[in-house]
Amino acid sequence: MLLHRAVIPCLRQACRLQSVPSRLCIRACSTNDSLQPQCPSLDFSGANSSTRGWRVMGTLLGLGAVLAYHDHRCRAAEKSPRIYTREEVKSHSSLETRIWVTLGCEVFDVTEFVDLHPGGPSKLMLAAGGPLEPFWALYAVHDQAHVREILAQYKVGELSPEDKAPSTLKTSDPYADDPVRHPALKVNSQRPFNAEPPPELLTENYITPNPIFFTRNHLPVPNLEPETYRLHVVGPPGCQSLSLSLDDLYQFPKHEVTVTLQCAGNRRSEMTQFKEVKGLEWNAGAISTARWAGARLCDVLAKAGHQLRETEAHVCFEGLDSDPTGTAYGASIPLARAMDPEAEVLLAYEMNGQPLPRDHGFPVRVVVPGVVGARHVKWLGKVSVEREESYSHWQRRDYKGFSPSVDWDTVDFDSAPSIQELPVQSAITEPKDGETVRSGEVTIKGYAWSGGGRAIVRVDVSLDGGLTWQVAELDGEEQRPRKAWAWRLWQLQAPVPAGKKELNIVCKAVDDSYNVQPDSVAPIWNLRGVLSNAWHRVHVRVTP
Amino acid sequence: MLLHRAVIPCLRQACRLQSVPSRLCIRACSTNDSLQPQCPSLDFSGANSSTRGWRVMGTLLGLGAVLAYHDHRCRAAEKSPRIYTREEVKSHSSLETRIWVTLGCEVFDVTEFVDLHPGGPSKLMLAAGGPLEPFWALYAVHDQAHVREILAQYKVGELSPEDKAPSTLKTSDPYADDPVRHPALKVNSQRPFNAEPPPELLTENYITPNPIFFTRNHLPVPNLEPETYRLHVVGPPGCQSLSLSLDDLYQFPKHEVTVTLQCAGNRRSEMTQFKEVKGLEWNAGAISTARWAGARLCDVLAKAGHQLRETEAHVCFEGLDSDPTGTAYGASIPLARAMDPEAEVLLAYEMNGQPLPRDHGFPVRVVVPGVVGARHVKWLGKVSVEREESYSHWQRRDYKGFSPSVDWDTVDFDSAPSIQELPVQSAITEPKDGETVRSGEVTIKGYAWSGGGRAIVRVDVSLDGGLTWQVAELDGEEQRPRKAWAWRLWQLQAPVPAGKKELNIVCKAVDDSYNVQPDSVAPIWNLRGVLSNAWHRVHVRVTP
Repeated sequence: MLLHRAVIPCLRQACRLQSVPSRLCIRACSTNDSLQPQCPSLDFSGANSSTRGWRVMGTLLGLGAVLAYHDHRCRAAEKSPRIYTREEVKSHSSLETRIWVTLGCEVFDVTEFVDLHPGGPSKLMLAAGGPLEPFWALYAVHDQAHVREILAQYKVGELSPEDKAPSTLKTSDPYADDPVRHPALKVNSQRPFNAEPPPELLTENYITPNPIFFTRNHLPVPNLEPETYRLHVVGPPGCQSLSLSLDDLYQFPKHEVTVTLQCAGNRRSEMTQFKEVKGLEWNAGAISTARWAGARLCDVLAKAGHQLRETEAHVCFEGLDSDPTGTAYGASIPLARAMDPEAEVLLAYEMNGQPLPRDHGFPVRVVVPGVVGARHVKWLGKVSVEREESYSHWQRRDYKGFSPSVDWDTVDFDSAPSIQELPVQSAITEPKDGETVRSGEVTIKGYAWSGGGRAIVRVDVSLDGGLTWQVAELDGEEQRPRKAWAWRLWQLQAPVPAGKKELNIVCKAVDDSYNVQPDSVAPIWNLRGVLSNAWHRVHVRVTP
Repeated sequence: MLLHRAVIPCLRQACRLQSVPSRLCIRACSTNDSLQPQCPSLDFSGANSSTRGWRVMGTLLGLGAVLAYHDHRCRAAEKSPRIYTREEVKSHSSLETRIWVTLGCEVFDVTEFVDLHPGGPSKLMLAAGGPLEPFWALYAVHDQAHVREILAQYKVGELSPEDKAPSTLKTSDPYADDPVRHPALKVNSQRPFNAEPPPELLTENYITPNPIFFTRNHLPVPNLEPETYRLHVVGPPGCQSLSLSLDDLYQFPKHEVTVTLQCAGNRRSEMTQFKEVKGLEWNAGAISTARWAGARLCDVLAKAGHQLRETEAHVCFEGLDSDPTGTAYGASIPLARAMDPEAEVLLAYEMNGQPLPRDHGFPVRVVVPGVVGARHVKWLGKVSVEREESYSHWQRRDYKGFSPSVDWDTVDFDSAPSIQELPVQSAITEPKDGETVRSGEVTIKGYAWSGGGRAIVRVDVSLDGGLTWQVAELDGEEQRPRKAWAWRLWQLQAPVPAGKKELNIVCKAVDDSYNVQPDSVAPIWNLRGVLSNAWHRVHVRVTP
């Protein structure tokens, strides 16, 4: 009687549909996870009577929800479907008339779901009164069984036979023009393209080669002509805006800096092992290091007439990647960072001595040393200085951290600051989890990095799950004080304790503010699966 | 057959004396701690056969060391002591002639101990060839049984009867002129004076009243006359130095800022519970907040002709508190921080609207927002800009963090950076550990703070030892972005789960770089007991 992980979101929906009190529903849905950190499926072995009691109750509630949901689906199937024309569907495109959408030949009233849409209500409203296909083609994350299950609950009928032909809307693949990628990349999502280098290549070089640099796209890759490219820099009130060609950008002093980029979702897969989160299943490879070159943002802003202000302000970036409605990727950073020459924020046009690859923002991207990857806007189209942070979905409704107690029913995105500097991080890249190592001596390798320019001062490695520790040797380039923008690679050669049949290898790093990584994942778990920086653990067997 | 904690350092010494191989000795000395994080005494209950085997072995080795040490002492006592004159002792004051000292009527050859002296070789050398009493009067930490035990091993004889009269050196109490203190302070050391406010008073006010502000002195409190006080600011090469009176300092623009000071050893007592460390037994009260006013250091440095440099440099501070040899307390911070107006480093002459109290540096102290208390030099006498960090003991041989694997036999102080910015911290001040709370609702209060101006974005509180969490309410003043120099007080009112007879209350904070506190103490344990910022835990009983 196991509840599969993928069923949980459907259960949540089912509970809502069945008017199961929300608190009860959440307990039913999450009991097996929250009480059993090491054991996401409902394994009763070894439980004491008190927790077992809870779990049985939770399971019964969960089972009740499953059965209720099944009943509902059966009842829906029993009735012959109501038939609607595309015109009728189209008339349901506002909250007043209710929000209808179609998928294939089915018609859904998603009014109740609009506010629950993980991508935000506005994104769902784009499809109001019409087919979902063009949007699902773009946001391919929807094409999953549990999303179809959620949708199925809202079915109200089917399209009339004459309207069952494919939508006249052009639904050609917006990703068809994406560049060809290196086959070594481990692909987490094809559309949009998201991929990481395999661990055995990640720490092979201090500088990550461009073709295997981790790639995190939110939308299709735009195909921009360098000759016609213009960067729009909005001037302060009363001043003219700048429209900079690539040649114009080349006129600014060229500044080079080695910077490690890390996705907020790096190592998310470890959070998922504890409890389901929303997001791509990154392993420990959503991090890479390059030598970037370009104009300093502070120089460009100064040229446009901007100065540091007494009051808090933000530099907003817009990408030239956009969805069919023209909504571009966007993000912002505080003006104080942007204007600080020591912060070395770049409008980069070179990556490791080459023009930016298309996947990494050709022809111009932002590079914000020490700050989460999400703010390094690619295919940069517009820069402006605003009183408020970017209103983009990715600034305000994503890339924020929450307490483990917060779920999608209770989350208040305005209550948490957008992620800027990242916390101290490290991971083991060699040996790999599940590998077999020889007795005698083991070589352990990995990376360590911290946000905000904080240098790595030490990496501790344990072979016994964290009971005893050895200090690893730091390789790669020395880090500059306060400007430790790039990672330290590290390694430890250690004797395998005699007679050991397995090793629980753990690493943890310390940065120069003496912040450390937390011991375990559960207490930092968050619904979006970001900021996953607990001790990294690798289990290996030892050959006799 | 328990090995008492206090015996361990003696054992270590005993092993050294008996030529027990160092590695074996360390195992013997530390086995009970390192294998039994929760159980520092040798309690065998519930141990499995494997760890029990280790412990028995460790105990036997430990017992062996004890017996060997006892033998040595007995042999020493058997012989009639050799007799020396003070003149003879005085002739042993260099490594060539060996280093002798006296205590009472006994004579010791401490040559082998000089390099092992926890306070550094140079401090011990001050007493070479003479009596220890004047130095022990100053560094009262020596007056403990285990220190006398260590010394006893080095006894080579006794003073001749005519020299047994008390040393002619004046040994009057250098602390006799220390100020009168508030009786609420919990005193951890009387000489030098070190004391913290009780937790129930600590978070009563956002601003800590001066009389109960935690006090961390390293030496006697100097008694300085405001009229004759001068601050010596060394100018750059080729420039004159400044000699600033208080009136001169008042001429600089007066800058006010609310700053939380925290001792690096705050919450050290929790580390001691896991394994012995060297240092004062601070609870969670070595932290306080005041409104400081004074001249900005950047303004004073600029007046002296200093500028920011391309190469790394440091601003060194010397206090006017000093030991009998004239060695003053000293520390340094990077020049980049000192010269940054946004870093708001002060030469403070006011604390909460009053002249600085004597215990807090009258008439002038340094205040370095976001940085460990040890750099906020009190009774400031001298400021200079140097290529290297301060050569003071407290900068180079103290206040640094190390791996849990490093002990006093293996520590290399040069391998770790001096502590500057502190990691994220929080603690519970109400209820107190061991208290009984009423069923119904419990109110939990505490503080949270992070170094480097990083704001506190969230405090999570658990009533069940960290399985589930609730978000606390942040009180007190809002924190400024990048300049969150002062703590947030917080509280949570939560229902006591029905039927609970006890609560394991835990708190953990998150700062705006999303750094978090580590789960447990053992993996951040370090020989000096600094940087103790694991989850804070309080156990309370619930009345039925």
